[in-house]
Amino acid sequence: MQQERCSSSDRPLDPGCVLACDAERSADRPGCAPVDFPVAVVLPAGGSGERMGLPAPKQFCTILNRPLISYTIQAFERLPWIGTVVVVVAKENHDLMLNIVQKFNHTKVNVVHGGTTRHRSIFSGLQAFCNTSNSLTPKPKVVIIHDAVRPFVEEDLLLKITLAAKEQGASGAIRPLVSTVIATTSEGYLDHSLERAKYRASEMPQGFLYDVIFQAYQRCSELDFEFGSECLHLALQYCGVNAKLIEGPPTLWKVTYKRDLAAAEAIIKETLSMSACIIAGAEAEATELAKTLQKNLNMMETDVIPCAKESNAGYLSKTRNFIHLSMTGSNSLGVLEMVKHFEDTDHARLYPVVIVWVQLNMTKQSVDSQKTDELTAFRILASEVIQGNVLLYGIQIEHTK
Amino acid sequence: MQQERCSSSDRPLDPGCVLACDAERSADRPGCAPVDFPVAVVLPAGGSGERMGLPAPKQFCTILNRPLISYTIQAFERLPWIGTVVVVVAKENHDLMLNIVQKFNHTKVNVVHGGTTRHRSIFSGLQAFCNTSNSLTPKPKVVIIHDAVRPFVEEDLLLKITLAAKEQGASGAIRPLVSTVIATTSEGYLDHSLERAKYRASEMPQGFLYDVIFQAYQRCSELDFEFGSECLHLALQYCGVNAKLIEGPPTLWKVTYKRDLAAAEAIIKETLSMSACIIAGAEAEATELAKTLQKNLNMMETDVIPCAKESNAGYLSKTRNFIHLSMTGSNSLGVLEMVKHFEDTDHARLYPVVIVWVQLNMTKQSVDSQKTDELTAFRILASEVIQGNVLLYGIQIEHTK
Repeated sequence: MQQERCSSSDRPLDPGCVLACDAERSADRPGCAPVDFPVAVVLPAGGSGERMGLPAPKQFCTILNRPLISYTIQAFERLPWIGTVVVVVAKENHDLMLNIVQKFNHTKVNVVHGGTTRHRSIFSGLQAFCNTSNSLTPKPKVVIIHDAVRPFVEEDLLLKITLAAKEQGASGAIRPLVSTVIATTSEGYLDHSLERAKYRASEMPQGFLYDVIFQAYQRCSELDFEFGSECLHLALQYCGVNAKLIEGPPTLWKVTYKRDLAAAEAIIKETLSMSACIIAGAEAEATELAKTLQKNLNMMETDVIPCAKESNAGYLSKTRNFIHLSMTGSNSLGVLEMVKHFEDTDHARLYPVVIVWVQLNMTKQSVDSQKTDELTAFRILASEVIQGNVLLYGIQIEHTK
Repeated sequence: MQQERCSSSDRPLDPGCVLACDAERSADRPGCAPVDFPVAVVLPAGGSGERMGLPAPKQFCTILNRPLISYTIQAFERLPWIGTVVVVVAKENHDLMLNIVQKFNHTKVNVVHGGTTRHRSIFSGLQAFCNTSNSLTPKPKVVIIHDAVRPFVEEDLLLKITLAAKEQGASGAIRPLVSTVIATTSEGYLDHSLERAKYRASEMPQGFLYDVIFQAYQRCSELDFEFGSECLHLALQYCGVNAKLIEGPPTLWKVTYKRDLAAAEAIIKETLSMSACIIAGAEAEATELAKTLQKNLNMMETDVIPCAKESNAGYLSKTRNFIHLSMTGSNSLGVLEMVKHFEDTDHARLYPVVIVWVQLNMTKQSVDSQKTDELTAFRILASEVIQGNVLLYGIQIEHTK
């Protein structure tokens, strides 16, 4: 199951979720050398988001109560082989950014101030590594430059970009052109159209040997700083490095317009709803039901575990959807344990955790008064845990063999 | 109010709503000559939608229970100066398309079969006008070629495209490039990057003198038919016509990926929620409340009218959100009248109509038993009208001066 999730390329991995499989992939996957050199990230986030027609710059717009930039940072932070993430913001957004770092518990971030253009901001980010007295930002071998507004960057692509940058000096993600590109005359008429097959859209992330891109910025002109935006171009022009180009998935797209926030939200929601954990207990009937459920939830990634104890913490941290099966007569202790665990691990901070408690009644005995008491207790519990972003539902199934 | 709505470019006009202002604009706007020559549309819709990873081609995917292509057709049908809309579909989707035409009451559509490539399909569409015995598709002066998957095309742009095509022979919508475009070497390395400012993305719609584009297709090669996709290029290469390029709004984008459906839905929902009609009755207190409401709903376009009678049909057809104010003691007759009007005009077929009935109690008299009866009657009414896609809500406000 885990392997399937890792290799699926249609859907991005949950950007806000530390996946157990991430750590395994970089080291264990055949054909992929592990990253055994220091890698850092520069995230220019100084944009004003004019194109969206929103008061806040788009990187600070929230999706499901979390700023876009926090998803992007998390996409890097979850990878053990990536060190510091230097976030370059406009001076007026410094405090806002520090608040985000604190609220969403980002641990690898170093916030620096940017310049007036994209190139100036990236150069500011790169200069953060020159200060050798700052142990937070040791000079990396490879630096990845990304956009704060591309939250769905996957490890697979980051690995390819990083390894190609180490080998070639520079690398960049590309996508096929969606529209034909045309050259215009100065009077606003068609001059000629480009043959689509020969060109690509240059996207992010891009990777560079730190020394290459730093040197390129040191050598480039004021004109480049003012009007340029393409890092690959600087590496070529000022260091003679032809970047290796790597085709990325469509989810790499840049959140540019207001409508893109709705699109990003849809992707995040779909990703969150695509996995579940079934806690089956020890009874044979529950285990059987769990297996049937797992079979029928074949669109989702499901795990079946016997209990929500500490030893299964890995499974519990992988998803936010839980189905807790138990037999009539058993109390809601298992559910309580689980809620406690989520409180301790702060698992519901970003998104709600959904727990469906299914009580199976396989006998014909039913003590109505006991049931009513249970129901009341469960309702009270549900109304309490909702404060901690845990949504608790109960289902009772009466079934005789 | 109406004028403001017409000139707003941030948000597309409701694609499914016949706007009273549309008809006015083409004739009355200063600087814009009216379209006094026949204009038709060709909508190639033969695509398979592979990029979305969905079973249905993307033009047939539904947004709020309506296929994407139906929104696009409606965007043209609502304009009185546009004649036939030729929709070109793959043979296997012919019946599906006819069902859509019938279900969503499209009146200007002629469905024809397409070829195996985009250019072949467009040519099939153009050939539909050659059959002079078919009075449904008289030969137009100007033909607009558009994409079935760009539902938010506005009259303003269509007018500019049409008039420029009449004058220059060809015209096309363009957008700035979102990404840098790069040329690649055959080994997958960066060759060079293009200077972004000199190039544009060629989008849709495009307009042509019918004779120009038809001749271009008659002259073009098998290679063009097989591998080309840019109509402007054909007009240039085979008829020597340099198209006039016109910058379009960002909402022109092409629904390409699954996430774009979520983005399109967000745009449609926002548009639907941005207008309301307040029915204030004759009483002074209700009129006063209506004015206060209108002032406070300043994010929305609101109209205040005295009653939901036939004479106000224009206001009623402009929105799907209604606030009906009345004084205690008055019955729900006004609401009933309105529901009846919407049934007759089929106004709630595409989207729900929302009616909030606000009953103002300005006196201290309150006859509890009468109230309960009213409440019951209102609830029954609400549960009945929901079948016809009308959502009815009631609010009672107790207020003494």
